[in-house]
Formats: sequence, structure tokens, C-alpha cells
Amino acid sequence: MTVTCLCLGLFWPWNALAIPQVSPVSSGCLGCHNSATPGIVLDWFKSRHATVTVEEALQKPVIEKRVSITEAPKGAAQTAVGCAECHTANPEKHKDTFDHNGYRVHVIVTPEDCAACHPVETNQYDRNLMSHAYGNLNNNPVYHSLLDSVNGIQSFQNMKTALKTPDAETNADSCLYCHGTAIKVNGMKKRGTSLGEMAFPVLSGWPNQGVGRINPDSSLGSCTPCHTRHSFSIEMARKPETCSECHKGPDVPAYNVYMVSKHGNIYSALNGEWNFKAVPWTLGKDFKTPTCAVCHISSVVTHAGAVVSERTHAMNDRLPWRLFGLIYAHAHPVSPDTTIIKNKAGLPLPTELTGEQASEYLIDAKEQEKRLKTMERPCLACHSTDWVEQQFNRFENTIKTTNEMTLSATKIVSTAWEKGVARGLAQNDSIFNEAIEKKWVEQWLFFANSTRFASAMIGADYGAFANGRWYLSKNLQEMSDLLECKLRGTKKEKRP
Amino acid sequence: MTVTCLCLGLFWPWNALAIPQVSPVSSGCLGCHNSATPGIVLDWFKSRHATVTVEEALQKPVIEKRVSITEAPKGAAQTAVGCAECHTANPEKHKDTFDHNGYRVHVIVTPEDCAACHPVETNQYDRNLMSHAYGNLNNNPVYHSLLDSVNGIQSFQNMKTALKTPDAETNADSCLYCHGTAIKVNGMKKRGTSLGEMAFPVLSGWPNQGVGRINPDSSLGSCTPCHTRHSFSIEMARKPETCSECHKGPDVPAYNVYMVSKHGNIYSALNGEWNFKAVPWTLGKDFKTPTCAVCHISSVVTHAGAVVSERTHAMNDRLPWRLFGLIYAHAHPVSPDTTIIKNKAGLPLPTELTGEQASEYLIDAKEQEKRLKTMERPCLACHSTDWVEQQFNRFENTIKTTNEMTLSATKIVSTAWEKGVARGLAQNDSIFNEAIEKKWVEQWLFFANSTRFASAMIGADYGAFANGRWYLSKNLQEMSDLLECKLRGTKKEKRP
Amino acid sequence: MTVTCLCLGLFWPWNALAIPQVSPVSSGCLGCHNSATPGIVLDWFKSRHATVTVEEALQKPVIEKRVSITEAPKGAAQTAVGCAECHTANPEKHKDTFDHNGYRVHVIVTPEDCAACHPVETNQYDRNLMSHAYGNLNNNPVYHSLLDSVNGIQSFQNMKTALKTPDAETNADSCLYCHGTAIKVNGMKKRGTSLGEMAFPVLSGWPNQGVGRINPDSSLGSCTPCHTRHSFSIEMARKPETCSECHKGPDVPAYNVYMVSKHGNIYSALNGEWNFKAVPWTLGKDFKTPTCAVCHISSVVTHAGAVVSERTHAMNDRLPWRLFGLIYAHAHPVSPDTTIIKNKAGLPLPTELTGEQASEYLIDAKEQEKRLKTMERPCLACHSTDWVEQQFNRFENTIKTTNEMTLSATKIVSTAWEKGVARGLAQNDSIFNEAIEKKWVEQWLFFANSTRFASAMIGADYGAFANGRWYLSKNLQEMSDLLECKLRGTKKEKRP
Repeated sequence: MTVTCLCLGLFWPWNALAIPQVSPVSSGCLGCHNSATPGIVLDWFKSRHATVTVEEALQKPVIEKRVSITEAPKGAAQTAVGCAECHTANPEKHKDTFDHNGYRVHVIVTPEDCAACHPVETNQYDRNLMSHAYGNLNNNPVYHSLLDSVNGIQSFQNMKTALKTPDAETNADSCLYCHGTAIKVNGMKKRGTSLGEMAFPVLSGWPNQGVGRINPDSSLGSCTPCHTRHSFSIEMARKPETCSECHKGPDVPAYNVYMVSKHGNIYSALNGEWNFKAVPWTLGKDFKTPTCAVCHISSVVTHAGAVVSERTHAMNDRLPWRLFGLIYAHAHPVSPDTTIIKNKAGLPLPTELTGEQASEYLIDAKEQEKRLKTMERPCLACHSTDWVEQQFNRFENTIKTTNEMTLSATKIVSTAWEKGVARGLAQNDSIFNEAIEKKWVEQWLFFANSTRFASAMIGADYGAFANGRWYLSKNLQEMSDLLECKLRGTKKEKRP
Repeated sequence: MTVTCLCLGLFWPWNALAIPQVSPVSSGCLGCHNSATPGIVLDWFKSRHATVTVEEALQKPVIEKRVSITEAPKGAAQTAVGCAECHTANPEKHKDTFDHNGYRVHVIVTPEDCAACHPVETNQYDRNLMSHAYGNLNNNPVYHSLLDSVNGIQSFQNMKTALKTPDAETNADSCLYCHGTAIKVNGMKKRGTSLGEMAFPVLSGWPNQGVGRINPDSSLGSCTPCHTRHSFSIEMARKPETCSECHKGPDVPAYNVYMVSKHGNIYSALNGEWNFKAVPWTLGKDFKTPTCAVCHISSVVTHAGAVVSERTHAMNDRLPWRLFGLIYAHAHPVSPDTTIIKNKAGLPLPTELTGEQASEYLIDAKEQEKRLKTMERPCLACHSTDWVEQQFNRFENTIKTTNEMTLSATKIVSTAWEKGVARGLAQNDSIFNEAIEKKWVEQWLFFANSTRFASAMIGADYGAFANGRWYLSKNLQEMSDLLECKLRGTKKEKRP
Repeated sequence: MTVTCLCLGLFWPWNALAIPQVSPVSSGCLGCHNSATPGIVLDWFKSRHATVTVEEALQKPVIEKRVSITEAPKGAAQTAVGCAECHTANPEKHKDTFDHNGYRVHVIVTPEDCAACHPVETNQYDRNLMSHAYGNLNNNPVYHSLLDSVNGIQSFQNMKTALKTPDAETNADSCLYCHGTAIKVNGMKKRGTSLGEMAFPVLSGWPNQGVGRINPDSSLGSCTPCHTRHSFSIEMARKPETCSECHKGPDVPAYNVYMVSKHGNIYSALNGEWNFKAVPWTLGKDFKTPTCAVCHISSVVTHAGAVVSERTHAMNDRLPWRLFGLIYAHAHPVSPDTTIIKNKAGLPLPTELTGEQASEYLIDAKEQEKRLKTMERPCLACHSTDWVEQQFNRFENTIKTTNEMTLSATKIVSTAWEKGVARGLAQNDSIFNEAIEKKWVEQWLFFANSTRFASAMIGADYGAFANGRWYLSKNLQEMSDLLECKLRGTKKEKRP
């Protein structure tokens, strides 16, 4: 099928590229959106979706395949993947479907829409903690109270601070930007456009591309945080800058650590010469050193064609530990829905406050070993077995020591609660809203996490002075001083 | 006119480039500076200034034009823009003019010199806050006292700290590096050179390329912080790294926020394939996603030639708000000279300490709306109207909430002043020199600013834990604890 | 000699490159390691070591030479530098030598191994502080106690914290990652491989590529932190990202400062067009602006062939000052082994606690002047003498002011020791383990260092708010408050 809309030929700016085989419906979209939103239209025009038909994608050898279907969706074999192929899929499921120039269109493309051609990836992603990031934060009362204490407005009156529940826009602008919002459709709204008045759905929680977004078709998550609209470039998804959007803060400084690791140094200095588009992705030929994707997601082969790692979008397939201590690092959860976890104390936490693991909800040592072996495969393509083993031993030692430093901080804050100089669970108060509690949070959320990431990815400098062991050690002394100072104050007040 | 100095041909290293049409005077400069300062000479040789004559620049179609004159400066039409064209311009105005090998040369090229070919840009820049950055900091007693408290040396004696006024070199090495120094000419000095003894002006406040520099010809500012000497590359000015020189600190973390935004991720991952030299600059073809310049300065067109944004060097044309809270975020000032502002309390601040705006000095809601519409134009080239509106609503909510968190901090520090545990304006003391005051400064200068930048440019992760809401919330608790501790100390001391 | 192992031809993936002249022994290595560790094998295959024979390297004109020998090591003239050339060198000296498929192989290639072809560089590196980084940290009791206080686990019991000595793996994962570990061989261990059971040495302190590593052949240091295995690319060593592996933390933020300097801005924006492989390296042609290597190490020439700087791997040749204040900035030490230094107070420190220099161990003013002149040479290739002089005057003023701010902090902590509210040397306690002491450490290790680096490399923004003068000033006020609070506590406790 060839393009029916003349305008495409007129504005097609790259002589070197063929005009895509666009479906009539998508061609209709392009007719207006070429001038309405020219940026994303050009972006898509340069993309693989625009230049390859589904049939051509299906004819690739297995190792080169980017789709995970065996036959094309009905009627779609001969066309490129244009606007309509995604934005009109599954109209009955999409609460955001609306009439738009004679078509049933929806605004928000979801993993379920992508599953038309990429079902294996969608299913894997569903098993990933990321797809549950909204619920895991919002539906866990402990973590939710952390969110409230971070985003809520504090007033000051009569020598006391008071915390208000944060508004929805603040949450969407803060934690939920990465975790994902729950998108709601609240009726329709008319709006003047260059083509006359039109009606559009009124969405709340929008815009948002969070990894655990609750979509209007009830699916979870979004593919676009990594596979950026509208070029959906594999190059972009494979580059660590994409991951940095959500993994650069002090709570989860994976990107920062990577960039001071030898792997990251090499990437930064030399990636201009690498091939980030090749499928399969050949170690030593297409790239010299791992990016985030290499270790956590990508299919990687040797120059001889041997498979080093198989592609997975369930990143926990390769993760024995959950480094991100809440509040301790622990064996990875069995279920991506972590709201089901209850520790012995009845709290929805994967460990006790003492660090003991809530084992029944966490993978066992055998599964950890299996995942570690999977994770090690790309390491072993360059490093000796001894090197790799000793690195992971060193890393597991770091898990142990950072958990110990978290335990000491927990003992200090617990003492504050017991002695009544801070208000905790026993007083039915948030455990995250006072100064000494916030210092405790930094101990595990910033400093222990940073140290563990630095150890895991060998960005050692980050685990020494840059938000690592220096702060673990300093923060503990400051907590101890603060406790002492608070206790002294209490004693004085009790004097007659 | 062709090159008269043989040496040019001898050392011209790029066969692919034509030898520039250098004026006889500039050719004289090059004769010696080719060996005296070979780096900048080669830099210039590769530049557009060296390879295009003024006449050629004038013959470009309007949309491709980089000069804003209609006819060439007298006698300059046929030559490239060489050393002498800039360094000997307006000699009578330049207090730094000196005799140099028979020519009247000045060291410091100023916006007024650049105006020979770029008068529109120079005039626009004059309306910009940046061009007034020196006076806005130095001539405002409140902000000047902040500068003193940051840069001054503190001694410790008899259990007390004391603050000395900072020396000029420290100020030049700190705040004034970006704000600009006031350059003074203090006579002449002889110096031995490879060509014998020569006399040069003795300059103070030099070297400096600050955006609000006070120049020896009395003009304000400098073009070189962005249009880096001596290639003056438009590519460089369009890349965010250039802006990062002054916009990366915790007070104004625009670059940091951009880099964790989706726009910044895309830039980092893919900019190697973009064209940063094209004029006009075509959206979707030359670049995929905005850099700082796209939103704040550049002329941008669509592939169909429609103008998305017009070039402006008065960046406030697109700025409804002044995010940089001093101490609150507020409507943008009317005049780029903010020293004229007085609030009701008589302080040279754009708001009261309660947050109420000093409206008579600030643009009104209608002007804000107009500037917002201008700012939104590049957004709408890729995003829907709904997306863009909701984004800016979310952002304005963030202005409100961060101002509230600033107000609470201000109430705490005000209580400290009232209760006499810190010394403020009533005690004729700096409001920036004590620990609790410095925590207050961080509330608005670091944490509220960071949160607002993160919201404005959608680098949301930066507004959560990385210097954003986490610290806004923690800092307030620490201020509250510190106030309590200080008050307790006072009570005790008062006991008989 | 041509390749004898057929497998090389089979997997050689780049048609454009010649098959290397590999020695028979190295060819044997490649036969297995091609599949055992394909990543590093391909990496090496693309390297200069694989594609140039020693004889070819020797025939280069002096200015292009990368080897510093005058004749090839015996029997090695006609071959590329393959696996065996490095991993079987000096077998008798290497305690990590073991029998491996009939060869005497060692795991750890050391500077002494590299000296076979690069003896001048190895000798220079020996004179460098870096090669002594292990001992300078570990064998200095003061600095060692800093390491202990950072890396040791703190427990909390009975209202008191207690510090345990850190374990070896933590030290290796933290400070020693950059400083280097002491590698020990602890017998042999059998391990199953794809080629059957084999025995390998059991190494402790491994893996490590620290700059001051103590090697199994007794040599000091490692070339691989900068000349990354196994391509040993000069491009990589010349790019600042390589330096960032160890120079990005708050203690030594050279990379961070560089990146906000104008030089770093230019590098970031434009380096894609530069030539980082050329030897000689031509200013203005191959690169526009300095990277770390340009100022500190590299040979640089002008387009006319004049030598601007001579290559040195003894970086202190160009360093008049030691910026990295321990605890004050001071004239550079004479010996790279700083454990020999004793100040008047008998402490192994290059200054007194008052800042007075331990001059007998430090270079004198004349040597400082000489080194400054060497350092200034690349500056003067682009900047005027006046510019450069004023820049270094400004920088020396910053050394003075940051030392003054360190002195004030030292007076506060000394008062705490004297008054008994902190335990210092007189109490036979660490001077780095309590909260007020840790704040003192940050004053010189983080804030004074950052300010000085910012001044030296003109990344001025970093010296204002980003870990510079703002924190110097704030930290001092907080230390003063903390001292006051602690003294108040003591008084109260003394009351009957």
C-alpha cells in the first residue's frame, strides 16, 4: 500500500529515506498533525516504526527480531506502524477513547497496545517491580507516609510545625513522575483549534510517563520512559542517559555511580564510535563496555554468534538482591507487587526494623544464586571467573556492612521514640516527619543505597566520599549528638 | 581584498577551507599572534568570522541571516571579521585602548563593539536581567550583604566568629565570575615580550567574562560567556553545556534539571547526530528536542518553514515568572535593573518577607499571559495543547507550594530574630551570617529554586530527592529543632 | 612473522584492519581466550598494541614516538604486543606467576612490565605522588585513622557509638579502590573451566587498578587506571572522563570543576570533532581547549611544530602547590613518599595545625616558580601574559583565604578538644570520629579543596555555591553553634 495523502511527499525532507507504507487511517492523521505537531511527526518519520512494515519485521532471522509475534495483527502486515496503529488500538478498553475527526482515538498508548507486536516484552515487564511502582508506593501505608512527609506543605505557628497532605499535582510533579500516576478521565472539554472547535477528554494525572502508571485501559506501566516517543529508538533505550531520568537522585544513584565506574568512563569517552542500533548487539564489536541495558535487559552476543545474555524486560530475572534498602537491602521480593508483604511486626516491610528478612516474601538462596549466575554472564565475557567472584563477594560484604550501619541508625531513632523525644508508631505518628527521623531516612535511603550501588557497579569513589561511607559515618555521629541534645532538653524541662 | 601577509598561507593548516579575506590591519595582528597566541588564532581561523565577509553575510535571505545590520560598517564589507575589526573598534570610548605596534588596540571587546554588525541582539541583551547582573547584586544592599557573608573570611576568637569584608579577588573568583566584574584601567605597565619590551594597560577585575560585566567603554555585559571566543560558534551557544558554566550550582540548577528531564536525556543520548550550526534551525530535522537555547533564545522553524519562535536576546520576553526566588518566586520584574525595586517594608526586594509581591515593579497578569504564550510555542510543536496547559498548571502549583515552604522557614527565622536568639535587621545585623539564617537561605535559594526549576523543565527527579522537596521538608524540621535548641539555651542563661 | 593460529582469521571481524603480527605464544593465548573472554580479546584486536610491531613503533620520528626505548626487547621487534608479551614478562619477579597451559603466566601486569617499552614513563610515574598513594594513606597514622573512621562500622549501645576497625574488603571497595590495594598471593586454587580443571593463584586485594597498588612483583602503581585495558587507548587517557573515576568526589572534585569551567564547557560541546589520537597533539588543530591531560601530562605542539609542553608522567613537574589540603594547602612535597614528613608538633603532616608549613619537606619558592612557569605554557598559547598572571594571582589569593577559613575551623575544633567536649589527640582518641570533628574535616577536605580547585581551573561557579565558599561559611557557623551547644550541655551536667 502506498501513501495516499499527497502532503507526505511534499514535506518529506530526507531524500535518502523511502516514503513509508502508511495505512490510510494514519495517513489521515498525518494530514493534519504534520502542521499541528510537526516535531513528533518528523521524529516518527525517522523511526523504525515508520520505515519497516510488520511483515518485513517478521521476516528477520530470530536473532535480529524486534517483534515477538509470529504473525502480523490482522490487516497490518503491509503497513508501517503509524499513528492509528497505536492510538486507535483496543478502543473499547480505553476509557480515554474519543471521537476525533471521524476516528475513535485514544491519547495514552499503553503496554497493552504495544503488545500487539511485542507481547513477550509486555508480559515480562508485568513481572517487573517497575510496572507495580505506583501501587508499591501508594498502597503501602509506610511508604505512603514517606511520600506525604516529603511532598506535604509544612506550616509554622505557635512554635510548632504542622504537615498538610500534599495535593495531587505536587505528587505528580514529584514521586509519581517516575512511579507513575493513576490517569483518570473526567468527561470531555471543547477547545478551539486551527481546524475549528473540537472536544477532547479531560484527563487527570496527565501528562505522565511513569514506569508504573495506571492506564485508562487498566493496564500497568508505560514503555515510553525508556522507549521514548515517537521514534522509540533502541539506541536511546540502550544509553544510560535514558535511565538517568529516574536513577540519578541520591536515593537511587545508579547513573552517578556508573559514570564514575570504569565502565562508565569508557562509555563516556568512547561511545561516539559504537553502534547502539544493531540487533543482535555484539560485544566488543558494537560496544566495548556495558551500559545499564547490557547488564539488566539486553540480548548480547559474541562476534562468533554465541548468546551471552538473553533479552528480558523482567529485570528481576538478573537481580538476586534488592539493593534499594527499605530500610535494609534484602533478597529480591518474589512478587512484583510488594504491598502483599508483612513482616513479623505486622508492618508492610520486607525486613524487621532489626534487619531480619521477611523471608516468606523473598526469593531463597537458590534462586539468588541462579540470578547471580545470569547477571555474571556479561561480566565473564571480559573478566576472569576469579575477578567476577571476588567482585561479588566484595559487594555482598558491602550489603552486610551497610545494613549494619542502618541498624545502628535505627537503634538511635528507636531510642528517641522510646524516650519520647520523637514521636513514632507507638504515638500513632509518622516515622518520617521529624528532623532525627529524616536523618535516619538519609542513612538508609541515601547513604547506604549509594554505597551499595557504588559497590555493585564498581563506581567506588561514589561509595567513599560522594554520598557513601563518609556520610554513613558522619550522619550516625550527628544522630547520636542530636539524640543527646534532645534528651538533655527533656531533662531540663522536667525540672521544677 | 586578499591576504597580504605571506605567513598566513604558510601556516594555514586546512586545505579544505579557503584563506580568509583578512583586512590589512588584521593581517598585521596575525603576523605576530600566529606565534604569540597560536591557539586562539587557529580557533578564529576555523570560525565563521574568518570565513565569511560582511557583504556575504548581508546577502543571506532574512531567515538565514546572522547579522542584524542592513549595510556593512564603512570599509568593512569586503573583509572577514578579523582581530582588528573588534579590537580596534570605538577606540575613543574604550578606556583600555593603548598603542600596540602602531595601532590603537583595546583588550576587552564589548557588546557595543559587537553591535557594529549585531545591533538588534545587543539592544535586546540590554533589556535582559543578565546585562544588569553586576549592579543587581552589588548595588542592592540586601544581596550585597549575602555576597559579603558568603565570600568574607570569618575569624574565630574568644568563642565568637567575626566576618571580614571579602577582598576584590575573592569576589571576582566567586559571585562576580558569572555576574561580571567592574573592569578598571589603572595606568600602563611595561613587560618584556618575544618582540621586545611593550607597554600594556593594567586592568583590575580582569580576566572576566561575566554576563553583567562593567566594561571600560561603559557598556554592560559580555557576549562571550555564550559565544565563546574566538570561534564564536553558534553550535556552542546552542548547547546546554555552555549555559552550565553559570547555571549548574544549587542556587540555579537549570543544567542539572535539564539533564534528568526527558528533553535532556534525549539531548545527551542523541545530539551527536544533530545539526547545531544551521540557520534557520529546523525542529525535527536539525534537532529532536529542545536545548536551553530553543526555549529561551533561538529562532526555530518547522520543516515547512513556519516560524515557531523568533530569536530574542532579551530572554525575559519569554519569562512570565522569575523562578529564582529572592526570596519568593514572583512575576518577572518590569525593569532589568532590579535595584529600583522597594517593597512596602522599604527593603530592595521584589516581595515582602511574607511573600506578597511588590507589584508596582513587576509585570502584570496580562503580560505574564503573553510571555507564557510565547514560551509555549515550541512546546506545542510536539505536544498537545492539553499536555502543555496541564504542565504549566502543575508548574504554577509548584511556585505556590515552594513559596509556602519558604514562608514557613521565614516565620522560623523571624521568630529567632524576635526572640533574640539570632540578630537580624532590627539589630542592624546581616540576615545571612548565622547558622539558622544560612539554613533559611538554603530553603529558598537552593531547595525552593531547585524544586521550581525541576517543575518548570520537567526534570522531576531533581525536585524530589536531589535538592528538592526532600530538603525543603527536612530543612524546615532542622530549623525548627535549632530554634528550639537556641531558645532553650537562652532560658538557661537567664536563670539566676 | 605471521599468525599461526587459524582461529584468528576465522573470527577477525574488521576487514579494514590487517591481521596482527602476533607472536606464537600470544597466538596460543588467543586460541582459547577468543572464546573464554571474547570482549577483551576484541578490545585488544582494535588497539595499537595489536596493530603495530615494536619495530614499526621505533621507526617513528621522535615527536611521534610512543615508546621510549631505543631498541626492541630481545626477540620482540617483529611482533605486535600481544597477551604473552605482558602477561609472561619478568616471571621470576612476579609472585603471581603460575603454570597455565604450559606457560609461566601472571595475572597482574605492572608498570615494571610496561617498562619494557615505556621505561621513561614508568620512571616518571615513580616520582609521582600517585605511585605512592597506598603508603601515603596507609602508613601515615593520621590519615590511616581518617580511613578507619570513614570505613569502620559503628555500633550503638547504651547511648554510645563505638567504632570497629574496617574489614579489608570494605577498604578495598572504598579508599583503596583509587589509592590501590596491596595484592597478596595466597597459594593456588583449582577451578573447573570449559577446558577442564585448572589451577589459579588465590589473590587478596584483587581486583584492583588503583594508582598506588602494591604489586606482586613489588613495583608500585598501575598504568591501567588511565590507560584502560586492553585497548590502552591514548584517546581514553586524554579524555577527562578517565580522570573522573577518582577525581569527582567532594574531596577532589577536579572533574566537576572542569565541567563548569569554560574549558570544560567547550570540551563537552565540541569534542566530537577533535582528534584525541594524534601524536604529536596539535593545539588548535587537534583540540581547541585543554583537557586534564593537556595541562598535567601531555606533549603539546603548535601547528608550526613548536613544542608547547613536554610529556611527563611525573605530574608534580608542573605542580607548584598541593591544593589538596591536609589540612592546609601547601607547597608541593619534595618526595612522593609523604610518610617521611614530620611537622614541629611531631605529627606526620605537611603543616602545623596552625597552617605553618613543614618547609624542610616541601619545595621552595624557586622550585614553585619554575613549576608554575611550566604549568603556564599551554595557557600562554591562547591567553595573554597579563591574563595568565592575574589568573594565578587570583588563585594564590584563594589558597590564602581557604587556608584562613580552615584555620578558623581548626580553632573551633581545638577549643572543643581543650574544653573536653570532644576527644582529640590529648585524650589519645581519633580526631576524625565525632560529629564536630567530621564537620572540621569537611571544612578542609570538601569545601576548601573544592574552592581551590574551582579557582585553579576557573570553574568559578563550583567555588561559590556548589561545595565552595557558601559551605565554608555555613559550616563554620554550624561548628560554632555546635561548640556552644556542647559547652552548654557540659555546664548543665556539672550542676549539682
